[in-house]
Amino acid sequence: MTRLRLVGAKEASMRAVDVIAKKRDGQSLSREEIAFFVQGFASGEIPDYQTAAWAMAVVLRGMDEVETTTLTLTMARSGQVLDLSSVGQTVADKHSSGGVGDKTTLVVAPWVASCGVPVGKLSGRGLGFGGGTIDKLEAVPGYRVDLSASEFLAQLREIHLVVSGQSRDLAPADGKLYALRDVTATVDSVPLIASSIMSKKIAAGANVIVLDVKTGRGALMKTEADAMALAELMVKIGRGSGRRVAAVVGDMSQPLGLAIGNSLEVIEAMETLKGRGPRDLVEHCLVVSGQMLKLSGAVQDDSEARSRLQDTLRSGKALAKFAEWIGAQGGDTRILDDYGILPTARLVQEVKADRSGFIAGIDALEMGMASVLLGGGREMKGGAIDYAVGLVLRYKVGDPVRAGETLCTIHANDAAKLERAHAAVAGAISIQDAPGKPPPLIHQIIS
Amino acid sequence: MTRLRLVGAKEASMRAVDVIAKKRDGQSLSREEIAFFVQGFASGEIPDYQTAAWAMAVVLRGMDEVETTTLTLTMARSGQVLDLSSVGQTVADKHSSGGVGDKTTLVVAPWVASCGVPVGKLSGRGLGFGGGTIDKLEAVPGYRVDLSASEFLAQLREIHLVVSGQSRDLAPADGKLYALRDVTATVDSVPLIASSIMSKKIAAGANVIVLDVKTGRGALMKTEADAMALAELMVKIGRGSGRRVAAVVGDMSQPLGLAIGNSLEVIEAMETLKGRGPRDLVEHCLVVSGQMLKLSGAVQDDSEARSRLQDTLRSGKALAKFAEWIGAQGGDTRILDDYGILPTARLVQEVKADRSGFIAGIDALEMGMASVLLGGGREMKGGAIDYAVGLVLRYKVGDPVRAGETLCTIHANDAAKLERAHAAVAGAISIQDAPGKPPPLIHQIIS
Repeated sequence: MTRLRLVGAKEASMRAVDVIAKKRDGQSLSREEIAFFVQGFASGEIPDYQTAAWAMAVVLRGMDEVETTTLTLTMARSGQVLDLSSVGQTVADKHSSGGVGDKTTLVVAPWVASCGVPVGKLSGRGLGFGGGTIDKLEAVPGYRVDLSASEFLAQLREIHLVVSGQSRDLAPADGKLYALRDVTATVDSVPLIASSIMSKKIAAGANVIVLDVKTGRGALMKTEADAMALAELMVKIGRGSGRRVAAVVGDMSQPLGLAIGNSLEVIEAMETLKGRGPRDLVEHCLVVSGQMLKLSGAVQDDSEARSRLQDTLRSGKALAKFAEWIGAQGGDTRILDDYGILPTARLVQEVKADRSGFIAGIDALEMGMASVLLGGGREMKGGAIDYAVGLVLRYKVGDPVRAGETLCTIHANDAAKLERAHAAVAGAISIQDAPGKPPPLIHQIIS
Repeated sequence: MTRLRLVGAKEASMRAVDVIAKKRDGQSLSREEIAFFVQGFASGEIPDYQTAAWAMAVVLRGMDEVETTTLTLTMARSGQVLDLSSVGQTVADKHSSGGVGDKTTLVVAPWVASCGVPVGKLSGRGLGFGGGTIDKLEAVPGYRVDLSASEFLAQLREIHLVVSGQSRDLAPADGKLYALRDVTATVDSVPLIASSIMSKKIAAGANVIVLDVKTGRGALMKTEADAMALAELMVKIGRGSGRRVAAVVGDMSQPLGLAIGNSLEVIEAMETLKGRGPRDLVEHCLVVSGQMLKLSGAVQDDSEARSRLQDTLRSGKALAKFAEWIGAQGGDTRILDDYGILPTARLVQEVKADRSGFIAGIDALEMGMASVLLGGGREMKGGAIDYAVGLVLRYKVGDPVRAGETLCTIHANDAAKLERAHAAVAGAISIQDAPGKPPPLIHQIIS
């Protein structure tokens, strides 16, 4: 079956229905067709129902690299594109595809800035088991996440570090498309995910972009192949738009670090900047930060990056940068010395090991779900979050454990939720006789 | 990648986005899910953008027979379902999947009724190269196509024959879905086409339904396999809903009969009922009418059907029924004796053969396009139609022809359009040296 095309129709103006049909039939869309469609739905001339049909056709038929790059750039240019040239030097940005216990930005942003590379980042809120950076920062009393474009730029110039919430003025076409995808089951598409992420990164203006893509049960991308496909596509799009881009594909089969929950992760980030972070988190942040330093030209290679980062950690410069940043955005800097200023849960309960052996697995997805159960994440958009609640693990996969030892501490504000979370956590952590092999921390790097 | 499902979500009420995701992932929808979705979009609770995404997922992932039957029945029951029991005997209906020069209903409806089987039919308008029965009937001055349900029923009881336009009250869910499919490139789907057709047929109440499905260049279904798939599915759905159903898969590689265009087809229908119809049209109508008589129980077999039909044709009963019907619906019955009462074109031009030989092909699609070019069809919904214009062929595929003979007469009201149509018609008719083999008139019958 083919669609009727009347003689002379090709001379007529472009029609949304024909662009949808072309994608439905598995053909590649031209630059003009993509620009027509994106501008149409951004302006409201193309109604949501046509955009929804088009998005489903993209999910099921795919998009090639050229199409995805065009989509990304058109969405990036659908609103304001930040001009960071007044900062006077290369600005670095990072993106995390999200995961459980992923507080990388809280550590990496001040750490990289403490090495002399300005970091300007716009972050999102979390939905479901993956917490958002903005939610974590909101756990800090006073911290402002709603900076205007000029406030963002001013702080970036002054202290070389700023992390604010997504502005509606940046890539509004993406904002509109994303909202529609969320309610039409068209989220799960590598080209749509890649263009959504990259359009915001490109509009945010940084020249250096490091993509922190996670893979495993607790990530959006369940397999390494999916994660690599997303990472490679985003790197190509970014480079195709003239940015310096690298990607780190990290593990999310178990949570990153030990803490899950907003206040608890802010505390773990500060502990890390104080030199007392969990080994996996420290290593992951070293790798991501190192890529940002290299791409910015601040260091020559990985070993120089690593020694520079270890210097600013030991000297306290990284922690000082954290304090300066939090203070500049209105946050209460007394949290550095008094974690009790952060929201704190009333109920604390420990989950004990029911046998001796070695930690075989800590299911990141189940742990994330347990955190949502406690109220630490959103079940739906716009839902409220309890910043105080969460989980703190004591072990990582491969560690030995003895029967009766604490595996995890649950922080809760509701006894019934605590009980449900306890069962979930107990089910998420498995113990076996053999030591087994821990998963790799970093799966791949595209640099 | 899988969609996040929070613990406990399964106890919550059904969500449209989950139904869309299930179809997107290629799974079969349950009866409850389909009913939820159809009732949701019919009532407006499920917005158009979700319905559009769902429709695209159905187009690309398909629907099985059980799903399609459920969809059909739910749409049929979304509004009024006509109760024809007051007619006192079995009522027959037919559906044509459309084509070029397809005036079957104009002949078959009075022919079958003249054999004592009541025919009650709701028809649609045409879009593109395939004209609609209602458009053809509107060429008759005074003919009313907007009967109310009670007028429809009254006429069916009184004269055992009525053909009116689709009522908005019948299968409103289908009406809403169809309008959305038209603008979201989700028309081309066998399950969606089958359920759309059958939901209206089931709501229209007839117990006997004969499906007249065309295949070839000038039909919606280009291949015999596609046409058979549609026919078989519709027969199964109809029988699954307790109706007596048969299907005829007829040829549409060349136009049916010789006339294309609204007035011109009404004239050809009358000529046919006067016993002077083109052989292919007469035969096609005999087959379709025969199926209607057999399913209604009026005759035992094909040969009895054929002789009964030939009797009412020869005796003039079929023509008299046509006149009675047209008159009952307000139409000017003087057209039977004076074709000039019908809209008539100002310009008439002949397309001549440029060589001698045998007609190798008369491209039904190109001929349909030429008729649209003249103004005889709609390029877009709601567009005006010139009832007078059209084409009259002199030959069918396989016929011998001599150089300089007239192949086709063009009836036009605009010189520029006439010129373009002339070129299109000349290109649509090909002549070869060998007699060749005409296409079969009837490809298959499911009875």
